[in-house]
Amino acid sequence: MQTLLLILDLAGTFVFALSGGAAGVNRRLDLFGVLVLSFVAGNFGGITRDVVIGATPPAAISDWRYLGVSVVAGLAAFYATSILARLRSPVLLFDAAGLALFAIAGAQKALTFGINPIMAALLGMLTGIGGGIARDVLAAEIPTVLRSDLYAIAALIGAAIVVIGHVLLFPASVTAVVGVLACFSIRVIAIRRGWHLPIASEAGQAANEATRDSRENGDTRIR
Amino acid sequence: MQTLLLILDLAGTFVFALSGGAAGVNRRLDLFGVLVLSFVAGNFGGITRDVVIGATPPAAISDWRYLGVSVVAGLAAFYATSILARLRSPVLLFDAAGLALFAIAGAQKALTFGINPIMAALLGMLTGIGGGIARDVLAAEIPTVLRSDLYAIAALIGAAIVVIGHVLLFPASVTAVVGVLACFSIRVIAIRRGWHLPIASEAGQAANEATRDSRENGDTRIR
Amino acid sequence: MQTLLLILDLAGTFVFALSGGAAGVNRRLDLFGVLVLSFVAGNFGGITRDVVIGATPPAAISDWRYLGVSVVAGLAAFYATSILARLRSPVLLFDAAGLALFAIAGAQKALTFGINPIMAALLGMLTGIGGGIARDVLAAEIPTVLRSDLYAIAALIGAAIVVIGHVLLFPASVTAVVGVLACFSIRVIAIRRGWHLPIASEAGQAANEATRDSRENGDTRIR
Repeated sequence: MQTLLLILDLAGTFVFALSGGAAGVNRRLDLFGVLVLSFVAGNFGGITRDVVIGATPPAAISDWRYLGVSVVAGLAAFYATSILARLRSPVLLFDAAGLALFAIAGAQKALTFGINPIMAALLGMLTGIGGGIARDVLAAEIPTVLRSDLYAIAALIGAAIVVIGHVLLFPASVTAVVGVLACFSIRVIAIRRGWHLPIASEAGQAANEATRDSRENGDTRIR
Repeated sequence: MQTLLLILDLAGTFVFALSGGAAGVNRRLDLFGVLVLSFVAGNFGGITRDVVIGATPPAAISDWRYLGVSVVAGLAAFYATSILARLRSPVLLFDAAGLALFAIAGAQKALTFGINPIMAALLGMLTGIGGGIARDVLAAEIPTVLRSDLYAIAALIGAAIVVIGHVLLFPASVTAVVGVLACFSIRVIAIRRGWHLPIASEAGQAANEATRDSRENGDTRIR
Repeated sequence: MQTLLLILDLAGTFVFALSGGAAGVNRRLDLFGVLVLSFVAGNFGGITRDVVIGATPPAAISDWRYLGVSVVAGLAAFYATSILARLRSPVLLFDAAGLALFAIAGAQKALTFGINPIMAALLGMLTGIGGGIARDVLAAEIPTVLRSDLYAIAALIGAAIVVIGHVLLFPASVTAVVGVLACFSIRVIAIRRGWHLPIASEAGQAANEATRDSRENGDTRIR
């Protein structure tokens, strides 16, 4: 089980690092910048979780395999962009698998460190989506994770299953498998069917815009 | 006193979370993205302070009430944007109150953890402004906190009063009240009268721009 | 040696803070925003390293001299922009020196805290480049550190020398000097000769762009 978790964890790191590397290539970063973005995308979520729960140094820092996997993914993104483009669908499935595993592993680690159940579920979600957020912040963009429907919430549902199982004293391995499958399925079905969460009504946005404009004219009023 | 502090602290979290939610709605994030931005805006300052002083897990992670308040604020921002727009002035006062309390509570917590006085005042300020900075970074904007006059500095003055009182061995409750009132008053008066700090002279900026252009042309020379 | 290290460390903080202040002036921040950006640019790398390795509170928080140096640099950037513009070349050399020292000091501190060699070298690099990354993120730009050739990699080489020396049981003071000189020389020569790392081929980028467009049209497919 421990070995399986590690393999899946590294696989998750690999796909996320791949997405970071592709973002770097698109923004015309040099080879080294691409590798840095790969590492950040693959490991930022886990590092943040470990720092917040006090598990320092983070696994991604103390275990060199996370770095190795990230570098290989970054090199692949840099040198094999056209192959990557053709592999889109497999990468998508792999990415959903990575999200699922990161979320479940993150929630379990937080529970181990005595975090309360609700926040453990959130930290699981954070582990899953943190890398993508950091990648987009470094690329000076609004994180796509915050826009794209049923991505963060799929991670949250998977993590919540682990936490609920923990509270009800179910065996950890069973809830982990159920959580991973739930997160993975939700994400894949959401992609295939284009499911998404609601966006605030246009009217509300217009009202909000108006507030914002008056704020910007008359100095900064609300923050 | 402890209960009063908690109530005010959660009130501060609420208004900041409201501002995060409004920013998310403006950027057309979906419901979940709006909630994430609410949580970040309401809690990032406190989480960063706790991580830096070694108080892990941070209160915003170990106490679920911070999450609850943030979610309610995010839902309000999402579903009641037009009401929010009308409430602008009360929100403003509430926001100044939140800033004041975050700054004072942050400085006191830093002192408790043995941080030296000058840095405790700065960490108090950071607690007050951190949420707004993270919110704007996620929205891919230059933080308004860094631009808007007498916001960060009001927080710093409030935090400094707490720290000076601590050094002079005044009772903590008295300096806390004075600090909150000072920060709140400075911020409100600055809004009403349009006070602001100086911006570097145009001439200086032009010279600087010139440097920057030559830097961008001839590779990246200064960083 | 300890005193020399502290002096060089503070000198490094000073130049990085100067670059942060200049960035703030260019973006028309007020005096306080400029000072905040100075502090962030000068100290973010070291603070992040200390938080990640569990050395809390970070030196930049517990030792007020880092703050003092950052404030002086911020005031200089604010009031003396035209002088700064004329000093470009000395600042460049000073910046390379700061990068070198931050990278070496960072790697040594990480080794002291029992981080494995490969990650210690990376944390050394992070200490050197972290401040510039945070500065650019706050200014809502893609970090120039990620684009500019032989900046991060010069820091990595310097840090690697320290780590290799540590593994081979060479005296720390010798490897520190060699590491600083190597990082400094590589950076200065790269500036003078315009050396840079490769950027992904246009063809690859086009393929990647195509993927990205189809992703943006058909919901968010890869992240």
